Amino acid sequence: MKESFKIIDRGGVCSAIGFLASGVHCGIKKNGDRDLALVFSEREAEVAAMFTLNQVKAAPVKVSQTKIANHTVRGVVFNSGNANACTGIVGLNDAKSMVELAAKACGVNGKEFLVCSTGRIGVLLPMRKVSSGIKKAAATLSNQNGRAASEAIMTSDTFPKEIAVSFRLGDQKITIGGMAKGAGMIHPNMATMLACITTDLKVDRKLLRKVVADCVEKTFNRISVDGDTSTNDTVIVLANGAAENHPLKAFHPQFKVFEQAMRFVMHSLAQMIVRDGEGISKVVHLAVRGARSPLDAKRAAQAIARSLLVKTSWCGEDVNWGRLMDAIGYSEARIREELVDIFYNGHLVVRNGIRSKVPEIKLKKVAMLDSFTITIDLHLGSGQYEMTTADLTEKYVELNKGE
Amino acid sequence: MKESFKIIDRGGVCSAIGFLASGVHCGIKKNGDRDLALVFSEREAEVAAMFTLNQVKAAPVKVSQTKIANHTVRGVVFNSGNANACTGIVGLNDAKSMVELAAKACGVNGKEFLVCSTGRIGVLLPMRKVSSGIKKAAATLSNQNGRAASEAIMTSDTFPKEIAVSFRLGDQKITIGGMAKGAGMIHPNMATMLACITTDLKVDRKLLRKVVADCVEKTFNRISVDGDTSTNDTVIVLANGAAENHPLKAFHPQFKVFEQAMRFVMHSLAQMIVRDGEGISKVVHLAVRGARSPLDAKRAAQAIARSLLVKTSWCGEDVNWGRLMDAIGYSEARIREELVDIFYNGHLVVRNGIRSKVPEIKLKKVAMLDSFTITIDLHLGSGQYEMTTADLTEKYVELNKGE
Repeated sequence: MKESFKIIDRGGVCSAIGFLASGVHCGIKKNGDRDLALVFSEREAEVAAMFTLNQVKAAPVKVSQTKIANHTVRGVVFNSGNANACTGIVGLNDAKSMVELAAKACGVNGKEFLVCSTGRIGVLLPMRKVSSGIKKAAATLSNQNGRAASEAIMTSDTFPKEIAVSFRLGDQKITIGGMAKGAGMIHPNMATMLACITTDLKVDRKLLRKVVADCVEKTFNRISVDGDTSTNDTVIVLANGAAENHPLKAFHPQFKVFEQAMRFVMHSLAQMIVRDGEGISKVVHLAVRGARSPLDAKRAAQAIARSLLVKTSWCGEDVNWGRLMDAIGYSEARIREELVDIFYNGHLVVRNGIRSKVPEIKLKKVAMLDSFTITIDLHLGSGQYEMTTADLTEKYVELNKGE
Repeated sequence: MKESFKIIDRGGVCSAIGFLASGVHCGIKKNGDRDLALVFSEREAEVAAMFTLNQVKAAPVKVSQTKIANHTVRGVVFNSGNANACTGIVGLNDAKSMVELAAKACGVNGKEFLVCSTGRIGVLLPMRKVSSGIKKAAATLSNQNGRAASEAIMTSDTFPKEIAVSFRLGDQKITIGGMAKGAGMIHPNMATMLACITTDLKVDRKLLRKVVADCVEKTFNRISVDGDTSTNDTVIVLANGAAENHPLKAFHPQFKVFEQAMRFVMHSLAQMIVRDGEGISKVVHLAVRGARSPLDAKRAAQAIARSLLVKTSWCGEDVNWGRLMDAIGYSEARIREELVDIFYNGHLVVRNGIRSKVPEIKLKKVAMLDSFTITIDLHLGSGQYEMTTADLTEKYVELNKGE
């Protein structure tokens, strides 16, 4: 019997046992929308987290990074509407205060919390509002408020992003659920994105971190909207062991199911982020194969994902394969023009570097879909890479012109 | 007495002695605009040329590259409206035919010509039209037709780009003039750009090539509109010696003036290309200093020039310095956030990585200008780099959506 995982209807960051959440408005956002969230674990949780590789790191990233090395944590405090980045010593102290205020408000004074912020760079947080917001959020913690939390981390997102799955592990049911936000500054590694994933699995810290690192590499690190890697990107995974399973080991027959389930949760959230990319009208999956190396395949895919001319042609539903050739040509991937094949949803458009005989109308039909796959075979080796990206629209420019 | 160069009123590719040009419509462009040009030298000309570094090279690039090694040339044939790129063997033969047809039509059968194409990738040239166009162009060669030639190489350009200067070299007057086209796919190295520069200077081939390479590096290689390096970029410089000067040597006191004049011609054409970038509303000069190395300075500048979020904020006249910090942070340049200073036209906006005290209104006034300079001091060394780029507008997306 092949065991696998199931999707939980309306699941999210509170689906796993022992996790509570809340999302409130405290006044950082001017429009009255929720802007402060808490995720709280009723018991100590192992944590795995990955942070932006940008050299300019927001204060909450710096603070959270110091918290995860040798500690379990009890929760995460989030705010949206202000990134608390490029805010100097004051910003750093504000991020530390958020951690302390959250622990105190949740009644676990002195225990570790993590902190995430997202929004405009370079503006100090309104700490009186944040402080009262944290109290308000702590007072409304509940395992029914995952949705409110997922709303409170949104910036230019148009919908909240949640998912949860469960699977059997011996006699226990294990749940993994999470929430994320994205929208702009989306590029590996990782995106202006925050994600918080919770599970009631009992698992060794080292093993958890390995699985999370692998899954992030194949999901959140493979999406690009606009090519800008932000100062605040954070993925946090909390595992509180409330399912009371025997601690999961790598040799356990169900270990693969855990890995698959975690990857599915991250993949789902990552795909929602692209689908909700600022102003986008198309989601495009890129698959490069036949590259001299996996790195070369990645370089070719990323050059395409960053090309303004390619992205605008997708927006216009124009089968402009010449721009794809141009982008891989200037990428740092080694290519030989006369060996390149390109497919649109499996239809050959370029063979040996020149236009195939497939009728324009077939290709045009693909280009008109909401979502399609472009496969590029470089015929130089066995390097492969896949990622998901989006088109560039007038709407993106309009959205990002002002504040 | 300090000698220097003078700008020639309405000067262009025919300003230097012994150069003729023409520009005609032959039917590649559907709208009746000129689409075929010739530049012809009445005597053998030394040539220096630089080509795109894209691995996907258009057929005319491949053909022209083979022509310059050990030969003088008599002219250049250009077409717009079709890039003759990704066109395989047929395209390669078409480019060779253009060279032969041009030499024949100009009455120098068997002599070397160069060829440049610009336009859409992946479509075969209509060679019957091109052939009759070349004859028509040869029949109208004149030293008065520089303007017509500069019009015939335009694609999405909104104005023709010409410049010429002269300077004294002993008893002789030396002239350098040129034309260029740009508009989209503009990024080092070099841009979807074609440029043809002519001079009546007598100069050794090796020296000419050195000066041209240096000048291209500091001009055409330092502009970016959309970050896409094209398949067709070409800069050609022809020197026919018609001024009858003693061949210029590097130790000649006037050598520096020649260098300055050549650089000025290229700089002027490059700046016109950015100014006429597709849909742009602002030209932004970037100056990075204090980098650990010149390469790091270049990396930081190019990351800014490619950031969609930075470019859209310029379009919106938003002083969004946080996006500048973000872009240099994810660039491959080494930076230390707490050391970064940023200036808008000399006004300090960021000091030590955080917002300066300069009033918003002063910075906003700069952001509202048609053109301004952003200076970034990384305070890590003495590496410097300067380049010119532009904003990203809804208009750019609109222009590039369709064919």
